[in-house]
Amino acid sequence: MPEPRTVLIVSDHTGLTAENIARALLAHFPGQPLVYRRRPFTADVPAAQAVTREVALLAARGERPLIFTTVTRADVLAELQACPAEVFDLLGPGLGVLEREFGIPAVREVGRHHDMHDSEAYLSRMDALDFALATDDGVGDKQYGLSDVILVGVSRAGKTPTSLFLALQHGIRASNYPLAEDDFERTGLPLPLEPWRAKLHGLTIDPRRLHAIRTQRKAGSRYASLEQCEHEVRRAERLFQRVGIPVRDTTTASVEEIAAGILQTLRQG
Amino acid sequence: MPEPRTVLIVSDHTGLTAENIARALLAHFPGQPLVYRRRPFTADVPAAQAVTREVALLAARGERPLIFTTVTRADVLAELQACPAEVFDLLGPGLGVLEREFGIPAVREVGRHHDMHDSEAYLSRMDALDFALATDDGVGDKQYGLSDVILVGVSRAGKTPTSLFLALQHGIRASNYPLAEDDFERTGLPLPLEPWRAKLHGLTIDPRRLHAIRTQRKAGSRYASLEQCEHEVRRAERLFQRVGIPVRDTTTASVEEIAAGILQTLRQG
Repeated sequence: MPEPRTVLIVSDHTGLTAENIARALLAHFPGQPLVYRRRPFTADVPAAQAVTREVALLAARGERPLIFTTVTRADVLAELQACPAEVFDLLGPGLGVLEREFGIPAVREVGRHHDMHDSEAYLSRMDALDFALATDDGVGDKQYGLSDVILVGVSRAGKTPTSLFLALQHGIRASNYPLAEDDFERTGLPLPLEPWRAKLHGLTIDPRRLHAIRTQRKAGSRYASLEQCEHEVRRAERLFQRVGIPVRDTTTASVEEIAAGILQTLRQG
Repeated sequence: MPEPRTVLIVSDHTGLTAENIARALLAHFPGQPLVYRRRPFTADVPAAQAVTREVALLAARGERPLIFTTVTRADVLAELQACPAEVFDLLGPGLGVLEREFGIPAVREVGRHHDMHDSEAYLSRMDALDFALATDDGVGDKQYGLSDVILVGVSRAGKTPTSLFLALQHGIRASNYPLAEDDFERTGLPLPLEPWRAKLHGLTIDPRRLHAIRTQRKAGSRYASLEQCEHEVRRAERLFQRVGIPVRDTTTASVEEIAAGILQTLRQG
């Protein structure tokens, strides 16, 4: 096993974008042992020099670290590029192409890529989060009319994480409808959902996973028993099929993937 | 004003990474009118052809769209690169450099960069989210011992969005302590926080913004009045200063920025 390689994420801002692209690249080399270190807010030369000192220490031990950076200020970038590391300048080449494409120079101020820059979008994300928290687990079904999306599923099938992610990341107002015994006895949709068929997204989950999750919460209860989980999931899936709403499986899909799938459906709808 | 340029985000997965890097690049050209279209799960040639048909329609109207893609499968990428658009291959060049650096070829399977691939990290994010929801707004102060971070601030200063973001994005267990009148009368920390000084992060906010947020919730109440907001914020800031805990202002910083700042403090601690 080789020594782990140090991956430095250097950004003049939070470093989330740089880290995501670094991880996307490095996921193509599954055998390599890596240690990630995030160095956010590296916005001026002294901050860059703190990074280059770190690189010098690693180089003294014979390591050549990888630097992934979204820094665009020329003096800060030059500082990084002068040190004994492999530097991945994630924005530079693209900026050059865009300058030619638009016929104007890029504005290379620090913090151009600011999460609150587009403050309307930011406020809509925070509003959507408040909305998701206020309507969590079926409270206030009169709010379904205000929702972009209504997530339907049995208890602990993943509705809450999905609705919070949709809000925080995408500014989408999601509310939840928890399926219960009464709902399974109907042939159609639960009554409160009837008017909102186009907004419904079913979430399902492997009954064994559900059993494990519910056991963490209420060990030994009927609610958490594998039998009960199997019963609920089977009937929920039948309901989704009967009424014909899109279904996603939270056992195998992350909140990112479920959210992306829902966005795609919204776009086509 | 020129016609808006279409920005196509093409990914074999959710497209979040591709969109973030596209936005980071395009933020350097603030005057350009743009329309974003995300095309996630473009994982095979037929899916890529759906995108190229879209490009052909735009080209027929005289537009040259921008494609930002994290697709790495050669046939899918070739499909995109053959169409009349400016294609930003976000991973290709970096993969080439890494292949030379590691001395092994990249594994170009679809979905290598899978959010649940690193399933332990994913579960810890979901656990942290459950934790944040369970301990929201000071419920269960015995849980402070289990927290990585305790956010302290007046009501509606931004504790909940920050704790949910820390959990969902970073798998960090954050709990909240809402400051109330009693707390301001003490010279030291509120008693439940005393043992956990090293975990504390203060959040503050502009009183006028707080007034606007609280007014949305309880218009006309004393709680929402500007006077009350000014009083609480002033006393909270004095408390933070007196006890010497790091403070972040949620008026001017996004949850992404606050989270990155907190991570940096954790790393140094």
